[in-house]
Amino acid sequence: MVAFRDTVRLETRGGVQAFDITQRVTAAVSKSGVREGLACVFTPSSTSAVITNEFEPGLMTEDIPKALERLFPEGIGYGHERRWHDGNGHSHVRATFLGPSLTFPIVDGRAALGTWQQIAFVELDNKPRHREVIVQIVGEGAKPRD
Amino acid sequence: MVAFRDTVRLETRGGVQAFDITQRVTAAVSKSGVREGLACVFTPSSTSAVITNEFEPGLMTEDIPKALERLFPEGIGYGHERRWHDGNGHSHVRATFLGPSLTFPIVDGRAALGTWQQIAFVELDNKPRHREVIVQIVGEGAKPRD
Amino acid sequence: MVAFRDTVRLETRGGVQAFDITQRVTAAVSKSGVREGLACVFTPSSTSAVITNEFEPGLMTEDIPKALERLFPEGIGYGHERRWHDGNGHSHVRATFLGPSLTFPIVDGRAALGTWQQIAFVELDNKPRHREVIVQIVGEGAKPRD
Repeated sequence: MVAFRDTVRLETRGGVQAFDITQRVTAAVSKSGVREGLACVFTPSSTSAVITNEFEPGLMTEDIPKALERLFPEGIGYGHERRWHDGNGHSHVRATFLGPSLTFPIVDGRAALGTWQQIAFVELDNKPRHREVIVQIVGEGAKPRD
Repeated sequence: MVAFRDTVRLETRGGVQAFDITQRVTAAVSKSGVREGLACVFTPSSTSAVITNEFEPGLMTEDIPKALERLFPEGIGYGHERRWHDGNGHSHVRATFLGPSLTFPIVDGRAALGTWQQIAFVELDNKPRHREVIVQIVGEGAKPRD
Repeated sequence: MVAFRDTVRLETRGGVQAFDITQRVTAAVSKSGVREGLACVFTPSSTSAVITNEFEPGLMTEDIPKALERLFPEGIGYGHERRWHDGNGHSHVRATFLGPSLTFPIVDGRAALGTWQQIAFVELDNKPRHREVIVQIVGEGAKPRD
Protein backbone atom coordinates (compact mmCIF):
# COMPACT_ATOMS: atom_id res chain seq x y z
CA MET A 1 0.00 0.00 0.00
CA VAL A 2 1.24 3.44 -0.89
CA ALA A 3 0.15 7.05 -0.57
CA PHE A 4 0.94 9.67 -3.18
CA ARG A 5 0.13 13.36 -3.25
CA ASP A 6 0.14 16.15 -5.81
CA THR A 7 -1.00 19.77 -5.95
CA VAL A 8 -2.91 21.59 -8.71
CA ARG A 9 -2.30 25.36 -8.72
CA LEU A 10 -4.80 27.77 -10.26
CA GLU A 11 -5.17 31.53 -10.67
CA THR A 12 -8.84 32.51 -10.72
CA ARG A 13 -10.70 35.73 -11.49
CA GLY A 14 -13.66 35.24 -9.10
CA GLY A 15 -17.39 34.88 -9.75
CA VAL A 16 -18.54 31.39 -10.64
CA GLN A 17 -15.59 30.13 -12.69
CA ALA A 18 -15.03 26.46 -13.49
CA PHE A 19 -11.66 24.92 -14.43
CA ASP A 20 -11.22 21.49 -15.99
CA ILE A 21 -8.53 19.84 -13.85
CA THR A 22 -9.14 16.29 -15.08
CA GLN A 23 -5.82 15.85 -16.85
CA ARG A 24 -3.82 17.13 -13.91
CA VAL A 25 -5.63 14.71 -11.60
CA THR A 26 -5.30 11.70 -13.91
CA ALA A 27 -1.60 12.50 -14.37
CA ALA A 28 -1.22 12.29 -10.57
CA VAL A 29 -3.02 8.93 -10.58
CA SER A 30 -0.60 7.59 -13.23
CA LYS A 31 2.42 8.92 -11.36
CA SER A 32 1.25 7.42 -8.05
CA GLY A 33 1.81 3.85 -9.17
CA VAL A 34 -1.46 2.91 -7.43
CA ARG A 35 -3.33 0.11 -9.26
CA GLU A 36 -6.40 -0.19 -6.99
CA GLY A 37 -7.37 2.47 -4.48
CA LEU A 38 -8.99 5.84 -3.84
CA ALA A 39 -8.18 9.40 -4.88
CA CYS A 40 -9.46 12.50 -3.08
CA VAL A 41 -9.38 15.88 -4.84
CA PHE A 42 -9.79 18.56 -2.16
CA THR A 43 -9.83 22.36 -2.09
CA PRO A 44 -8.68 23.66 1.34
CA SER A 45 -10.95 26.68 1.05
CA SER A 46 -14.40 27.84 2.16
CA THR A 47 -15.29 29.76 -1.03
CA SER A 48 -14.60 27.20 -3.75
CA ALA A 49 -15.69 23.66 -4.61
CA VAL A 50 -14.68 20.50 -6.46
CA ILE A 51 -17.40 18.89 -8.56
CA THR A 52 -17.70 16.46 -11.42
CA ASN A 53 -19.81 16.48 -14.58
CA GLU A 54 -19.43 16.99 -18.32
CA PHE A 55 -17.10 19.92 -18.87
CA GLU A 56 -18.80 21.81 -21.65
CA PRO A 57 -19.69 25.52 -21.75
CA GLY A 58 -23.49 25.23 -21.55
CA LEU A 59 -23.29 23.37 -18.26
CA MET A 60 -20.23 24.96 -16.71
CA THR A 61 -20.72 28.63 -17.65
CA GLU A 62 -24.50 28.80 -17.77
CA ASP A 63 -26.53 26.03 -16.08
CA ILE A 64 -24.49 25.57 -12.90
CA PRO A 65 -23.95 29.32 -12.32
CA LYS A 66 -27.68 29.94 -12.90
CA ALA A 67 -28.64 27.17 -10.48
CA LEU A 68 -26.31 28.64 -7.82
CA GLU A 69 -27.81 32.12 -8.28
CA ARG A 70 -31.36 30.71 -8.15
CA LEU A 71 -30.73 28.71 -4.95
CA PHE A 72 -28.26 31.01 -3.18
CA PRO A 73 -28.72 34.51 -4.63
CA GLU A 74 -25.93 37.02 -4.28
CA GLY A 75 -27.71 40.07 -2.87
CA ILE A 76 -30.13 38.77 -0.23
CA GLY A 77 -28.16 39.80 2.86
CA TYR A 78 -26.02 37.18 4.55
CA GLY A 79 -25.25 37.05 8.27
CA HIS A 80 -21.70 36.13 7.35
CA GLU A 81 -21.12 39.57 5.85
CA ARG A 82 -21.68 41.26 9.20
CA ARG A 83 -18.37 39.75 10.29
CA TRP A 84 -16.15 40.42 7.31
CA HIS A 85 -17.97 42.98 5.12
CA ASP A 86 -16.46 41.48 1.99
CA GLY A 87 -19.72 40.67 0.24
CA ASN A 88 -19.09 36.96 -0.26
CA GLY A 89 -21.67 35.40 2.06
CA HIS A 90 -23.27 33.69 -0.94
CA SER A 91 -19.85 32.20 -1.85
CA HIS A 92 -19.58 30.49 1.55
CA VAL A 93 -23.10 29.07 1.41
CA ARG A 94 -22.62 27.82 -2.17
CA ALA A 95 -19.31 26.17 -1.22
CA THR A 96 -20.98 24.47 1.76
CA PHE A 97 -23.68 22.91 -0.42
CA LEU A 98 -21.45 21.91 -3.37
CA GLY A 99 -18.70 20.56 -1.12
CA PRO A 100 -14.89 20.85 -1.21
CA SER A 101 -13.98 17.43 -2.53
CA LEU A 102 -14.46 14.56 -4.93
CA THR A 103 -13.43 11.04 -3.93
CA PHE A 104 -13.31 8.41 -6.68
CA PRO A 105 -11.94 4.89 -7.26
CA ILE A 106 -8.73 3.96 -9.03
CA VAL A 107 -9.24 0.80 -11.07
CA ASP A 108 -6.44 -1.02 -12.94
CA GLY A 109 -4.17 1.98 -12.48
CA ARG A 110 -6.62 4.52 -13.91
CA ALA A 111 -9.13 7.04 -12.56
CA ALA A 112 -12.52 5.29 -12.83
CA LEU A 113 -14.29 8.32 -14.30
CA GLY A 114 -17.02 8.09 -16.90
CA THR A 115 -16.56 9.40 -20.43
CA TRP A 116 -18.63 12.51 -19.72
CA GLN A 117 -17.36 12.98 -16.21
CA GLN A 118 -14.64 15.57 -15.93
CA ILE A 119 -13.32 16.97 -12.64
CA ALA A 120 -13.97 20.68 -12.19
CA PHE A 121 -12.58 23.12 -9.67
CA VAL A 122 -15.17 25.87 -9.18
CA GLU A 123 -14.16 29.30 -7.90
CA LEU A 124 -17.08 30.77 -5.96
CA ASP A 125 -15.42 33.78 -4.33
CA ASN A 126 -16.16 37.29 -5.59
CA LYS A 127 -12.52 38.19 -6.26
CA PRO A 128 -9.41 36.66 -7.90
CA ARG A 129 -7.68 34.01 -5.82
CA HIS A 130 -4.60 31.83 -5.93
CA ARG A 131 -5.74 28.25 -5.29
CA GLU A 132 -3.94 25.03 -4.46
CA VAL A 133 -6.04 21.90 -4.87
CA ILE A 134 -4.71 18.74 -3.18
CA VAL A 135 -4.86 15.31 -4.84
CA GLN A 136 -4.28 12.56 -2.28
CA ILE A 137 -4.13 8.93 -3.42
CA VAL A 138 -4.03 5.74 -1.33
CA GLY A 139 -4.08 2.14 -2.46
CA GLU A 140 -2.25 -0.93 -3.62
CA GLY A 141 0.64 -0.55 -6.03
CA ALA A 142 4.33 0.02 -6.47
CA LYS A 143 6.06 3.08 -5.05
CA PRO A 144 6.07 5.90 -7.63
CA ARG A 145 9.23 6.06 -9.73
CA ASP A 146 9.80 9.87 -10.06
CA MET B 1 -3.51 -3.24 3.88
CA VAL B 2 -5.66 -4.47 1.02
CA ALA B 3 -7.83 -3.06 -1.74
CA PHE B 4 -10.95 -4.83 -3.01
CA ARG B 5 -13.37 -3.87 -5.76
CA ASP B 6 -16.81 -4.92 -6.89
CA THR B 7 -19.38 -3.71 -9.43
CA VAL B 8 -23.14 -3.28 -9.04
CA ARG B 9 -25.03 -3.51 -12.34
CA LEU B 10 -28.45 -1.92 -12.80
CA GLU B 11 -30.99 -1.50 -15.60
CA THR B 12 -32.94 1.73 -15.15
CA ARG B 13 -35.99 3.22 -16.82
CA GLY B 14 -35.04 6.91 -16.50
CA GLY B 15 -36.71 9.78 -14.68
CA VAL B 16 -35.87 10.06 -10.99
CA GLN B 17 -35.59 6.40 -10.01
CA ALA B 18 -33.92 5.21 -6.80
CA PHE B 19 -32.49 1.71 -6.25
CA ASP B 20 -31.58 0.28 -2.86
CA ILE B 21 -28.07 -1.13 -3.39
CA THR B 22 -27.21 -1.49 0.31
CA GLN B 23 -27.04 -5.28 0.36
CA ARG B 24 -24.84 -5.46 -2.70
CA VAL B 25 -22.45 -2.93 -1.14
CA THR B 26 -22.36 -4.60 2.29
CA ALA B 27 -21.77 -7.97 0.58
CA ALA B 28 -18.69 -6.44 -1.08
CA VAL B 29 -17.50 -5.15 2.30
CA SER B 30 -17.82 -8.67 3.78
CA LYS B 31 -16.06 -10.25 0.83
CA SER B 32 -13.18 -7.71 0.95
CA GLY B 33 -11.81 -9.03 4.24
CA VAL B 34 -11.21 -5.41 5.32
CA ARG B 35 -11.71 -4.93 9.09
CA GLU B 36 -11.00 -1.18 9.34
CA GLY B 37 -10.99 1.13 6.33
CA LEU B 38 -13.00 3.11 3.81
CA ALA B 39 -15.45 2.17 1.07
CA CYS B 40 -16.33 4.42 -1.86
CA VAL B 41 -19.50 3.76 -3.90
CA PHE B 42 -19.15 5.65 -7.18
CA THR B 43 -21.23 6.04 -10.35
CA PRO B 44 -19.00 6.83 -13.36
CA SER B 45 -21.74 8.91 -14.96
CA SER B 46 -22.86 12.54 -15.25
CA THR B 47 -26.62 11.88 -15.08
CA SER B 48 -26.94 9.72 -11.97
CA ALA B 49 -26.02 9.96 -8.29
CA VAL B 50 -25.25 7.91 -5.19
CA ILE B 51 -26.92 9.10 -2.00
CA THR B 52 -27.79 7.74 1.41
CA ASN B 53 -30.93 8.00 3.51
CA GLU B 54 -33.84 5.87 4.66
CA PHE B 55 -35.02 3.81 1.70
CA GLU B 56 -38.78 4.05 1.97
CA PRO B 57 -41.27 5.08 -0.74
CA GLY B 58 -42.35 8.44 0.71
CA LEU B 59 -38.81 9.75 0.69
CA MET B 60 -37.40 8.00 -2.36
CA THR B 61 -40.33 8.25 -4.80
CA GLU B 62 -41.93 11.47 -3.61
CA ASP B 63 -39.88 13.84 -1.42
CA ILE B 64 -36.51 13.63 -3.17
CA PRO B 65 -37.97 13.74 -6.71
CA LYS B 66 -40.14 16.74 -5.69
CA ALA B 67 -37.15 18.54 -4.18
CA LEU B 68 -35.15 17.94 -7.38
CA GLU B 69 -37.98 19.30 -9.54
CA ARG B 70 -38.40 22.32 -7.24
CA LEU B 71 -34.68 23.21 -7.25
CA PHE B 72 -33.73 22.12 -10.78
CA PRO B 73 -36.94 22.10 -12.87
CA GLU B 74 -37.05 20.06 -16.04
CA GLY B 75 -38.38 22.54 -18.57
CA ILE B 76 -36.59 25.83 -17.89
CA GLY B 77 -34.14 25.74 -20.80
CA TYR B 78 -30.62 24.54 -20.12
CA GLY B 79 -27.51 25.70 -21.95
CA HIS B 80 -26.35 22.10 -21.97
CA GLU B 81 -29.16 21.15 -24.33
CA ARG B 82 -27.82 23.44 -27.06
CA ARG B 83 -24.93 20.99 -27.38
CA TRP B 84 -26.71 17.66 -27.35
CA HIS B 85 -30.44 18.35 -27.88
CA ASP B 86 -31.35 15.36 -25.73
CA GLY B 87 -33.41 17.23 -23.17
CA ASN B 88 -31.48 16.15 -20.09
CA GLY B 89 -29.85 19.38 -18.98
CA HIS B 90 -31.72 19.14 -15.68
CA SER B 91 -30.28 15.62 -15.20
CA HIS B 92 -26.71 16.91 -15.42
CA VAL B 93 -27.34 19.78 -12.99
CA ARG B 94 -29.12 17.48 -10.50
CA ALA B 95 -26.25 14.96 -10.70
CA THR B 96 -23.73 17.74 -10.09
CA PHE B 97 -25.47 18.87 -6.90
CA LEU B 98 -26.27 15.41 -5.48
CA GLY B 99 -22.83 14.03 -6.30
CA PRO B 100 -21.62 10.72 -7.79
CA SER B 101 -20.36 9.00 -4.66
CA LEU B 102 -20.72 7.99 -1.06
CA THR B 103 -17.63 7.33 1.05
CA PHE B 104 -18.14 5.65 4.42
CA PRO B 105 -16.10 3.88 7.12
CA ILE B 106 -15.71 0.16 7.62
CA VAL B 107 -15.64 -0.68 11.33
CA ASP B 108 -14.96 -4.15 12.72
CA GLY B 109 -15.44 -5.66 9.27
CA ARG B 110 -18.83 -4.05 8.65
CA ALA B 111 -20.18 -1.00 6.81
CA ALA B 112 -20.67 1.64 9.52
CA LEU B 113 -24.10 2.71 8.27
CA GLY B 114 -26.93 3.77 10.57
CA THR B 115 -30.11 1.71 10.92
CA TRP B 116 -32.07 4.12 8.72
CA GLN B 117 -29.26 4.80 6.33
CA GLN B 118 -29.49 2.79 3.15
CA ILE B 119 -27.36 3.39 0.06
CA ALA B 120 -29.33 4.47 -3.00
CA PHE B 121 -28.32 4.73 -6.62
CA VAL B 122 -30.45 7.42 -8.24
CA GLU B 123 -31.04 7.45 -11.99
CA LEU B 124 -31.51 11.07 -13.09
CA ASP B 125 -31.36 10.69 -16.86
CA ASN B 126 -34.52 10.98 -18.95
CA LYS B 127 -34.18 7.58 -20.61
CA PRO B 128 -33.38 3.96 -19.66
CA ARG B 129 -29.72 3.28 -18.99
CA HIS B 130 -27.42 0.39 -18.18
CA ARG B 131 -25.40 1.40 -15.12
CA GLU B 132 -22.30 -0.01 -13.44
CA VAL B 133 -21.64 1.34 -9.96
CA ILE B 134 -18.13 0.77 -8.59
CA VAL B 135 -17.50 -0.19 -4.96
CA GLN B 136 -13.84 0.34 -4.04
CA ILE B 137 -12.61 -0.64 -0.57
CA VAL B 138 -9.24 0.05 1.08
CA GLY B 139 -8.08 -0.76 4.58
CA GLU B 140 -6.56 -3.17 7.05
CA GLY B 141 -7.48 -6.81 6.85
CA ALA B 142 -6.75 -10.18 5.35
CA LYS B 143 -6.77 -10.72 1.60
CA PRO B 144 -10.23 -11.85 0.46
CA ARG B 145 -10.66 -15.59 0.40
CA ASP B 146 -12.29 -16.81 -2.82
CA MET C 1 -0.16 1.51 5.97
CA VAL C 2 -2.40 1.81 9.00
CA ALA C 3 -6.04 2.43 9.82
CA PHE C 4 -7.15 4.35 12.90
CA ARG C 5 -10.62 5.14 14.17
CA ASP C 6 -12.14 7.49 16.72
CA THR C 7 -15.66 8.54 17.74
CA VAL C 8 -17.01 12.03 18.47
CA ARG C 9 -20.03 12.01 20.80
CA LEU C 10 -22.53 14.88 20.84
CA GLU C 11 -25.78 15.72 22.61
CA THR C 12 -27.98 17.89 20.39
CA ARG C 13 -31.18 19.82 20.94
CA GLY C 14 -32.68 19.46 17.43
CA GLY C 15 -33.54 22.05 14.80
CA VAL C 16 -30.65 23.15 12.60
CA GLN C 17 -27.79 23.09 15.10
CA ALA C 18 -24.12 23.14 14.06
CA PHE C 19 -21.22 21.90 16.23
CA ASP C 20 -17.57 22.67 15.56
CA ILE C 21 -15.86 19.27 15.79
CA THR C 22 -12.59 20.33 14.11
CA GLN C 23 -10.38 19.90 17.16
CA ARG C 24 -11.74 16.45 17.94
CA VAL C 25 -11.11 15.37 14.36
CA THR C 26 -7.60 16.85 14.14
CA ALA C 27 -6.75 15.22 17.49
CA ALA C 28 -7.70 11.85 15.96
CA VAL C 29 -5.47 12.60 12.96
CA SER C 30 -2.53 13.33 15.28
CA LYS C 31 -3.18 10.21 17.35
CA SER C 32 -3.43 8.01 14.22
CA GLY C 33 0.26 8.33 13.38
CA VAL C 34 -0.75 8.65 9.70
CA ARG C 35 1.59 11.01 7.76
CA GLU C 36 -0.05 10.79 4.31
CA GLY C 37 -3.57 9.49 3.76
CA LEU C 38 -7.30 10.15 3.95
CA ALA C 39 -9.72 10.83 6.78
CA CYS C 40 -13.48 10.31 6.56
CA VAL C 41 -15.80 11.99 9.09
CA PHE C 42 -19.15 10.22 8.91
CA THR C 43 -22.48 10.48 10.71
CA PRO C 44 -24.33 7.12 10.67
CA SER C 45 -27.69 8.88 10.60
CA SER C 46 -30.35 9.97 8.12
CA THR C 47 -31.26 13.26 9.86
CA SER C 48 -27.88 14.91 10.33
CA ALA C 49 -24.94 15.96 8.16
CA VAL C 50 -21.21 16.66 8.20
CA ILE C 51 -20.13 19.80 6.33
CA THR C 52 -17.16 22.12 6.19
CA ASN C 53 -16.92 25.90 6.07
CA GLU C 54 -15.97 28.81 8.30
CA PHE C 55 -17.44 28.20 11.73
CA GLU C 56 -18.78 31.61 12.67
CA PRO C 57 -22.26 32.49 13.88
CA GLY C 58 -23.49 34.43 10.83
CA LEU C 59 -22.92 31.46 8.57
CA MET C 60 -23.69 28.59 10.93
CA THR C 61 -26.72 29.94 12.80
CA GLU C 62 -28.22 32.18 10.14
CA ASP C 63 -27.16 31.68 6.49
CA ILE C 64 -27.08 27.88 6.34
CA PRO C 65 -30.32 27.40 8.34
CA LYS C 66 -32.05 30.02 6.14
CA ALA C 67 -30.82 28.31 2.95
CA LEU C 68 -32.11 24.96 4.22
CA GLU C 69 -35.53 26.43 5.02
CA ARG C 70 -35.66 28.18 1.64
CA LEU C 71 -34.79 25.04 -0.33
CA PHE C 72 -36.45 22.39 1.85
CA PRO C 73 -39.17 24.12 3.89
CA GLU C 74 -40.43 22.48 7.05
CA GLY C 75 -44.19 22.56 6.60
CA ILE C 76 -44.85 21.62 2.95
CA GLY C 77 -46.05 18.05 3.54
CA TYR C 78 -43.57 15.25 3.04
CA GLY C 79 -44.40 11.75 1.86
CA HIS C 80 -41.98 10.44 4.46
CA GLU C 81 -44.24 11.62 7.26
CA ARG C 82 -47.03 9.29 6.17
CA ARG C 83 -44.83 6.44 7.37
CA TRP C 84 -43.60 7.72 10.69
CA HIS C 85 -45.76 10.74 11.62
CA ASP C 86 -42.85 12.35 13.42
CA GLY C 87 -42.78 15.56 11.38
CA ASN C 88 -39.17 15.33 10.25
CA GLY C 89 -39.56 14.73 6.52
CA HIS C 90 -37.68 17.96 5.85
CA SER C 91 -34.80 16.67 8.05
CA HIS C 92 -34.36 13.58 5.87
CA VAL C 93 -34.40 15.56 2.61
CA ARG C 94 -31.94 18.13 3.99
CA ALA C 95 -29.61 15.37 5.18
CA THR C 96 -29.76 13.71 1.76
CA PHE C 97 -28.68 16.88 -0.03
CA LEU C 98 -26.00 18.00 2.47
CA GLY C 99 -24.55 14.51 2.83
CA PRO C 100 -23.36 12.47 5.83
CA SER C 101 -19.61 12.78 5.40
CA LEU C 102 -16.50 14.80 4.72
CA THR C 103 -13.41 13.10 3.28
CA PHE C 104 -10.17 15.09 3.32
CA PRO C 105 -6.41 14.51 2.84
CA ILE C 106 -3.83 14.12 5.56
CA VAL C 107 -0.59 15.84 4.54
CA ASP C 108 2.65 15.67 6.56
CA GLY C 109 0.75 14.26 9.52
CA ARG C 110 -1.87 17.02 9.62
CA ALA C 111 -5.44 17.50 8.39
CA ALA C 112 -5.10 19.48 5.14
CA LEU C 113 -7.89 21.91 5.98
CA GLY C 114 -7.84 25.58 5.02
CA THR C 115 -7.61 28.33 7.63
CA TRP C 116 -11.32 29.15 7.31
CA GLN C 117 -12.42 25.60 6.88
CA GLN C 118 -13.74 24.06 10.05
CA ILE C 119 -15.57 20.72 10.25
CA ALA C 120 -19.18 21.01 11.42
CA PHE C 121 -21.62 18.35 12.49
CA VAL C 122 -25.12 19.62 11.73
CA GLU C 123 -28.13 18.27 13.59
CA LEU C 124 -31.15 18.42 11.27
CA ASP C 125 -33.69 16.38 13.24
CA ASN C 126 -36.58 18.10 15.00
CA LYS C 127 -35.77 16.71 18.45
CA PRO C 128 -32.75 16.20 20.75
CA ARG C 129 -30.51 13.32 19.77
CA HIS C 130 -27.44 11.50 21.02
CA ARG C 131 -24.99 11.34 18.13
CA GLU C 132 -21.80 9.38 17.48
CA VAL C 133 -19.74 10.63 14.57
CA ILE C 134 -17.09 8.23 13.23
CA VAL C 135 -13.62 9.41 12.17
CA GLN C 136 -11.88 6.75 10.06
CA ILE C 137 -8.31 7.32 8.89
CA VAL C 138 -6.21 5.29 6.44
CA GLY C 139 -2.74 5.96 5.14
CA GLU C 140 0.99 5.66 5.50
CA GLY C 141 2.55 6.07 8.91
CA ALA C 142 3.60 4.42 12.13
CA LYS C 143 1.11 2.54 14.27
CA PRO C 144 -0.41 4.88 16.89
CA ARG C 145 1.43 4.92 20.17
CA ASP C 146 -1.20 4.96 22.96
